[in-house]
Amino acid sequence: MLPVVRAYPLYKFLHFTEESGLEKNILDCGAGGNLPPLLLFHQYGYQTTGIDISSRSLARADQFTEKYGVNLNIVPGDMRELKFPDESFSFAYSYNSIFHMSKEEIKHSVNQIFRVLKSGGLTFINLLSIDDAMCGEGEKIGENEFIQEEEKKVVHSFHRDNEADSLFAGQEIIHREKRYLERIYDGRKILQVFIDYIGKKV
Amino acid sequence: MLPVVRAYPLYKFLHFTEESGLEKNILDCGAGGNLPPLLLFHQYGYQTTGIDISSRSLARADQFTEKYGVNLNIVPGDMRELKFPDESFSFAYSYNSIFHMSKEEIKHSVNQIFRVLKSGGLTFINLLSIDDAMCGEGEKIGENEFIQEEEKKVVHSFHRDNEADSLFAGQEIIHREKRYLERIYDGRKILQVFIDYIGKKV
Repeated sequence: MLPVVRAYPLYKFLHFTEESGLEKNILDCGAGGNLPPLLLFHQYGYQTTGIDISSRSLARADQFTEKYGVNLNIVPGDMRELKFPDESFSFAYSYNSIFHMSKEEIKHSVNQIFRVLKSGGLTFINLLSIDDAMCGEGEKIGENEFIQEEEKKVVHSFHRDNEADSLFAGQEIIHREKRYLERIYDGRKILQVFIDYIGKKV
Repeated sequence: MLPVVRAYPLYKFLHFTEESGLEKNILDCGAGGNLPPLLLFHQYGYQTTGIDISSRSLARADQFTEKYGVNLNIVPGDMRELKFPDESFSFAYSYNSIFHMSKEEIKHSVNQIFRVLKSGGLTFINLLSIDDAMCGEGEKIGENEFIQEEEKKVVHSFHRDNEADSLFAGQEIIHREKRYLERIYDGRKILQVFIDYIGKKV
């Protein structure tokens, strides 16, 4: 049996995509890793496309799709510069990925996502909140933007509650949710705080 | 095709139940309604049992299971007084249901849930936070407990951030998450705030 996709805010997105009645094709920006969330949409009959900038994440996705014999169509790509024509997809999302960039890059990426969405199409993105325990750690490179150490040096951008509404200017925000998660990590409790958006291309 | 279960915090619970390796049987307390969440566990091969105190919710569940030809085994019952022997289930949960009782009744119900859980078994419950927009409305009957009008008069209890940890005294809390949802309801924006727990019977 196929494993359960863990990216569970995407189940809410799936609900909206299913209700929309649009053609079932979907793009994931930052699609790689050990358990690609596109699997969920694949299981519901969507034609999937994924891009990832990280060769390591792409390799992990390849291992997964080979092991389980599913083709999710995940290829190298950069969400700041999507290589797809305008209005290519009914749905496009970026899960736990877009906040690993500066706010300027996030803005470019969201604009790219809206460019490749069809009219009436839906997008999901999630951002880190300034209430996240990691906000303030590392080297400051902008307003609530920091370079932090994980497996390697990565950027994390953090947003105030309504700050990212401006990314959807001219479009429609159909859902916003802030999630406070307490997790045990390396034996200590940490607080992760996300802001999820579902937007619609007007 | 079967519809997508909308109770999406239960997908996170599903992840934990799948990882546990325990026998796949599960109880839903407050299981009725138009789209019974037990469907999700049914789809993953669980033996399901549901109880509901509301004849209207039971009737809606019956309509659903007849329409889709699935048997979820949802029967009348009261979670304050579960009619199952000790240690009957690997998993037991109550989704968007338990907060429709007083805090005293919630405590009884959670104790009942732990009673019918096997050792090592897992539970999910979600509560309303005092940050929820509805907190304070209606007739006060206790500390952050109110009688409010929906389809009919119903109790709503609201909890401070860590207040409900005491429900798990002697057990283990393996996940806690607070979710702020903004929704459009009757044309106005409302804020719903939930606190989700996943607990383990020690």
